[in-house]
Amino acid sequence: MGDAAARFAEIVGRTHLLAGDQVSEDYAHDESLTTEPRKPAFVAKPATAEEVAALLVAAGEHGVPVTARGAGSGMSGAARPREDGLLISFERMNSVLEIDTGNQVAVVQPGVSLAELDERAAEAGLSYPVYPGELSASVGGTVGTNAGGMRAVKYGVTRHNVLGLQAVLPTGEIIRTGGRTSKISTGYDLTQLIIGSEGTLALATEVVVKLAPRLAHSATLLAPFGDLDQVMRAVPRILEAGLAPHILEYIDNLTMAAITYNEKLSLGIPDEVRDATQAYLVVGLENREADRLDGDVERAGELLGELGASDVYVLEGGSARKLIEAREKAFWTAKAAGADEIIDVVVPRTEMPGFLAEVRELATAAEAGAVGCGHAGDGNLHLGIFCKDQEKRYRLLHDVFAAAIARGGAISGEHGIGHAKKRHYLELEDPAKVALLRRLKQAFDPQGILNPGVLFD
Amino acid sequence: MGDAAARFAEIVGRTHLLAGDQVSEDYAHDESLTTEPRKPAFVAKPATAEEVAALLVAAGEHGVPVTARGAGSGMSGAARPREDGLLISFERMNSVLEIDTGNQVAVVQPGVSLAELDERAAEAGLSYPVYPGELSASVGGTVGTNAGGMRAVKYGVTRHNVLGLQAVLPTGEIIRTGGRTSKISTGYDLTQLIIGSEGTLALATEVVVKLAPRLAHSATLLAPFGDLDQVMRAVPRILEAGLAPHILEYIDNLTMAAITYNEKLSLGIPDEVRDATQAYLVVGLENREADRLDGDVERAGELLGELGASDVYVLEGGSARKLIEAREKAFWTAKAAGADEIIDVVVPRTEMPGFLAEVRELATAAEAGAVGCGHAGDGNLHLGIFCKDQEKRYRLLHDVFAAAIARGGAISGEHGIGHAKKRHYLELEDPAKVALLRRLKQAFDPQGILNPGVLFD
Ligand SMILES: Cc1cc2nc3c(=O)[nH]c(=O)nc-3n(C[C@H](O)[C@H](O)[C@H](O)COP(=O)(O)OP(=O)(O)OC[C@H]3O[C@@H](n4cnc5c(N)ncnc54)[C@H](O)[C@@H]3O)c2cc1C
Ligand SMILES: Cc1cc2nc3c(=O)[nH]c(=O)nc-3n(C[C@H](O)[C@H](O)[C@H](O)COP(=O)(O)OP(=O)(O)OC[C@H]3O[C@@H](n4cnc5c(N)ncnc54)[C@H](O)[C@@H]3O)c2cc1C
Repeated sequence: MGDAAARFAEIVGRTHLLAGDQVSEDYAHDESLTTEPRKPAFVAKPATAEEVAALLVAAGEHGVPVTARGAGSGMSGAARPREDGLLISFERMNSVLEIDTGNQVAVVQPGVSLAELDERAAEAGLSYPVYPGELSASVGGTVGTNAGGMRAVKYGVTRHNVLGLQAVLPTGEIIRTGGRTSKISTGYDLTQLIIGSEGTLALATEVVVKLAPRLAHSATLLAPFGDLDQVMRAVPRILEAGLAPHILEYIDNLTMAAITYNEKLSLGIPDEVRDATQAYLVVGLENREADRLDGDVERAGELLGELGASDVYVLEGGSARKLIEAREKAFWTAKAAGADEIIDVVVPRTEMPGFLAEVRELATAAEAGAVGCGHAGDGNLHLGIFCKDQEKRYRLLHDVFAAAIARGGAISGEHGIGHAKKRHYLELEDPAKVALLRRLKQAFDPQGILNPGVLFD
Repeated sequence: MGDAAARFAEIVGRTHLLAGDQVSEDYAHDESLTTEPRKPAFVAKPATAEEVAALLVAAGEHGVPVTARGAGSGMSGAARPREDGLLISFERMNSVLEIDTGNQVAVVQPGVSLAELDERAAEAGLSYPVYPGELSASVGGTVGTNAGGMRAVKYGVTRHNVLGLQAVLPTGEIIRTGGRTSKISTGYDLTQLIIGSEGTLALATEVVVKLAPRLAHSATLLAPFGDLDQVMRAVPRILEAGLAPHILEYIDNLTMAAITYNEKLSLGIPDEVRDATQAYLVVGLENREADRLDGDVERAGELLGELGASDVYVLEGGSARKLIEAREKAFWTAKAAGADEIIDVVVPRTEMPGFLAEVRELATAAEAGAVGCGHAGDGNLHLGIFCKDQEKRYRLLHDVFAAAIARGGAISGEHGIGHAKKRHYLELEDPAKVALLRRLKQAFDPQGILNPGVLFD
């Protein structure tokens, strides 16, 4: 161990290696509610891809498991290090290297936060549209989890917005994948394979992302519905209409009550409407031109009425922003309310009504609560699970995940498997696929030093 | 061999196995100009995934190499079988299984042609936007090559439009990857890894594709420029303007002359304009609403003028369609004109002017010709190479590909590597990446029975 520490310190410089008591609590966990925190033996803060490569080689030689960490805002425990391990924190690799307006891409180091990337893109009239609730998240972390967020309904998830990587293989080789073009048919797509692999295959040391034109005009519609089922049925209809919303979220009445209360947010909805509401749809529209946006808002309003909304509120700038921010904080609200787990299961969007009915039944039978909100346009449901008994909760989650899979969905839409959902994943996934994934892991990481315990045992 | 034939016939039925003289010339090649045709020992036409799996198991046991074939319209020789091999033709697995309007997806068998898929989607007011020039191409083949085409500038390539697969592994296991949702973070993304792997990793037996709303109104603008360089410089500017063209093609004057002559197409361009033109931009715009389209056409016209177009023609329905069709046939035109190779190199779009200048110099030095057209919006250039001497042509292509890679591009944007460009690929690609790709290949196909000789030796 002493030997390893000396090697790591030599590579990154003494001041950028923490060991023992120098390692703060913060590095012991991400935001998963159920993954036990563990302080790593070492935290290294490299400044270059070469340092990352040298760290991996040294870790391999000393048999030290390695976990990558961006901002630690992940929800699956995948950035939770091992006690005997090295945590590579990308906090010093945090430069926006280039905003390339001609190709509409940015080249960034992995430690850059989404907030900073979007700010820098905005200066050029562009935007990075991947927008998970937590804008402190690092670009490298979003590559790790294949993060989604609210705008995925229009712009896709991380996978659809990352064009290329510089990545370090566990064997210490530094490779480049993809590039500044969205079209490449030259060998297997390593970019896509690394995205969403939760730090188990390779570490991204540079990321090329697509930027989208920043549209000047946007509006937010809030539509209360008497019935959750109606909300779910409305979703495909809104997408079929071709209005291309960039936000299409649902919020159930309990969650809306909690987030508006917590954020002291008044939306101007009369009490009698609120009391008769089971769930809300939030529809975000945007356009290059103001009059086109107005036309779309009108059309969306009519459509929501036809689909059963009891009313439609077009929120003004300030309150629209506040509602979206409050929605983004739904996780903290659920956590504060005592949620025992938060999941982000995904089903085809037409399956949402049936699936949510099934979840309600399962929760009732387990004497548990399941409330939430979600990226309805993507069939991605964020549910706070209230169930103290660990074994009961495990069974309930198993049944909920199995129900989603039976409907053509998956355990996680955007948070990943990590440690938190690994047992469920290994129980529910096709063994032939798990075996193939293990062989792929072996092809990247023959010594098994990258994030062992995540995804697989 | 006799044994193998009996096993294959047992699996697919005697009438669906061809051997020896029953195998027609057609199965010996795709549309690659430089890949030697080879008649396979067997052609099997399975009807189900289970039959495909049984064929792969039997082929493995008998040591028979297997090549998949869709429509054989590929340009890299990747569907060219081995003489001792089994060609699995998906021609009987050609059903559109479902058009799911609620989730805006289609579920199809791999042998379905793009033309049929788009026709079926149109009945539901939707479209499958992957549109390579050859609409007889099969969906399975486009998965194999990660096909692109004209509309990729707005809709992305096959990779961005395939959500899920049923696939048969070389070991005979049938797996399902992805689903009807565009968000999944549950294990490594096998869908994306199989797409573009040119039939070397797994065979797709069912494909779930995204469908897009079919927009009612479209227009095509044709802009002649005095200077190819100007055309190339105009491309990023048009994309920055946020008009979201669904077509952004360039056609050089020689290619335009040839395709309009071949297709007897009159575009109403006065002789003096034509004579002063070095290249054309074709800009396709579309919208849900007619007046919005009109606004965009006007804006695009102004912009093209500012960018140096000597004129702008808004083509009417019939001649617009004919021009696009003629452009799609540019390959046949180049072939008929005696092109010795056709490549589809890709560079970041801002690199196009410099790259094309470099290509001209290289071609001149090699006493060769290099003319063409291309998906300019994606930096994807289709160049007909006229150079009879094989060794000279090899050196020229090597230099052209190396120049593209030096500018952050790649050997192929959408056609793939196959047999045709394998030697270049293996010479020019980072050895660490090739080694990793080989290990991935091994993880899927330990016996090496799927399309040996494609991508790797
Ligand atoms: C309030 C709140 C709201 C959220 N809302 C959303 C949401 O709407 N959508 C959504 O998708 N997520 C959401 N998240 C989850 C979280 O923001 C995302 O998972 C994000 O991608 C994590 O980024 P990070 O930098 O914090 O990564 P970390 O948690 O540090 O790491 C995540 C994973 O990436 C790996 N990793 C880190 N850096 C690298 C690298 N350079 N190369 C390779 N792997 C790396 C880690 O090992 C780990 O496996 C939310 C979180 C919170 C707290
Ligand atoms: C005139 C013309 C214009 C063209 N224009 C374009 C263009 O603009 N853009 C573009 O991208 N391409 C273009 N192409 C090339 C061609 O159409 C595409 O490469 C297409 O994807 C090939 O489809 P196919 O069914 O003919 O595949 P094939 O040639 O039969 O096979 C292609 C590859 O896919 C594999 N394969 C076939 N079926 C499966 C399956 N079920 N599972 C896994 N692998 C499979 C094969 O083994 C092979 O490796 C053009 C071709 C022509 C002739």
